[in-house]
Amino acid sequence: MTAETDESFGDVTPDAARRLLLGAVEAFAERGFHATTTRDIAGRAGMSPAALYIHYKTKEELLFQISRVGHERSVHLMEEATAGDGSAAERLAHAVRSFARWHAEHHTTGRVVQYELAALSEQHYAQIVRLRRRTEDILRGVLQDGVASGEFAVGDIRGTALAVLSLCVDVARWFRPDSRRTPDEIGVLYADLALRMAGHRAG
Amino acid sequence: MTAETDESFGDVTPDAARRLLLGAVEAFAERGFHATTTRDIAGRAGMSPAALYIHYKTKEELLFQISRVGHERSVHLMEEATAGDGSAAERLAHAVRSFARWHAEHHTTGRVVQYELAALSEQHYAQIVRLRRRTEDILRGVLQDGVASGEFAVGDIRGTALAVLSLCVDVARWFRPDSRRTPDEIGVLYADLALRMAGHRAG
Repeated sequence: MTAETDESFGDVTPDAARRLLLGAVEAFAERGFHATTTRDIAGRAGMSPAALYIHYKTKEELLFQISRVGHERSVHLMEEATAGDGSAAERLAHAVRSFARWHAEHHTTGRVVQYELAALSEQHYAQIVRLRRRTEDILRGVLQDGVASGEFAVGDIRGTALAVLSLCVDVARWFRPDSRRTPDEIGVLYADLALRMAGHRAG
Repeated sequence: MTAETDESFGDVTPDAARRLLLGAVEAFAERGFHATTTRDIAGRAGMSPAALYIHYKTKEELLFQISRVGHERSVHLMEEATAGDGSAAERLAHAVRSFARWHAEHHTTGRVVQYELAALSEQHYAQIVRLRRRTEDILRGVLQDGVASGEFAVGDIRGTALAVLSLCVDVARWFRPDSRRTPDEIGVLYADLALRMAGHRAG
């Protein structure tokens, strides 16, 4: 169990359900969804397969809960960072700093959340897509505000919003705990890069 | 067998070895490396497991060949795009256009190449890391040239080069053949975004 994954699922109760999600994140990250058995997940949580089924009916339900928590966390980070009455540039920088840092700190969860979407049921996938749209909408709104206020110069707002999110999400792929940069440093660099992508003139 | 993967492995001979690589790309993309059997790969190539072993001793060797071909292709694209005597801005735009477009066109291969690295043997992984460093070096060189010529304003050249590559690689994650944008359109948008990230003043 890595400390990394602990905080994201802190709100999940009871404790057994939370430990199963952590075991599933670890197993999916190491072996992929299809190569992981519910027996393996239960074992990592120190439980029997029968005890697992009390909390999750299928392996797919574990994946969905991981994806849901991860995506709800993304929406929350975006809402929190873009709330308030800062300038569009301040809100964009704050949002990107939080979002990039989260994907560094939670890179194992981030990889599972991003790479295993195809294994979700159609209905669960649709729920996740709604959360992704919400995250995109928030970021697009900040870019639109900045264009309206003259802070930003963006031709393709939709494409630029997607690219900024994509840049942050991909941190989960390449980040290693022994990386040259800390999650915080990555957040600061990426906030600057996002302002540049938005055509913000510094100073 | 998708047309997408066909061209990347066009140089692999004999034909049976090439068909096995295509089968492996498809299987790894669908099920992940660990959930894929050599029997499954052989079946997708219309061959027996015994026939597979004539060409590849292990499943890991298939993954390594896929990764090697994919990464060599990346190095080649970068070399080709940045050769010649264009300005740094022209070379950066050309490189990013090619690299982003490749990851859209070859998104299935791109995902396998990027997501399954952890399954490589230590020795094979080291070979792939050398190819990745080569790609990074080429892009960093273009940014350095542009800073030296006054075309670009970049504080953190290493971090910016990695971010530009990361942005392009992540296209393989989100691109769908029915996406709103064509691979060409993504390449054009991303070339513009990379110039912005490099602090290039248009016009």
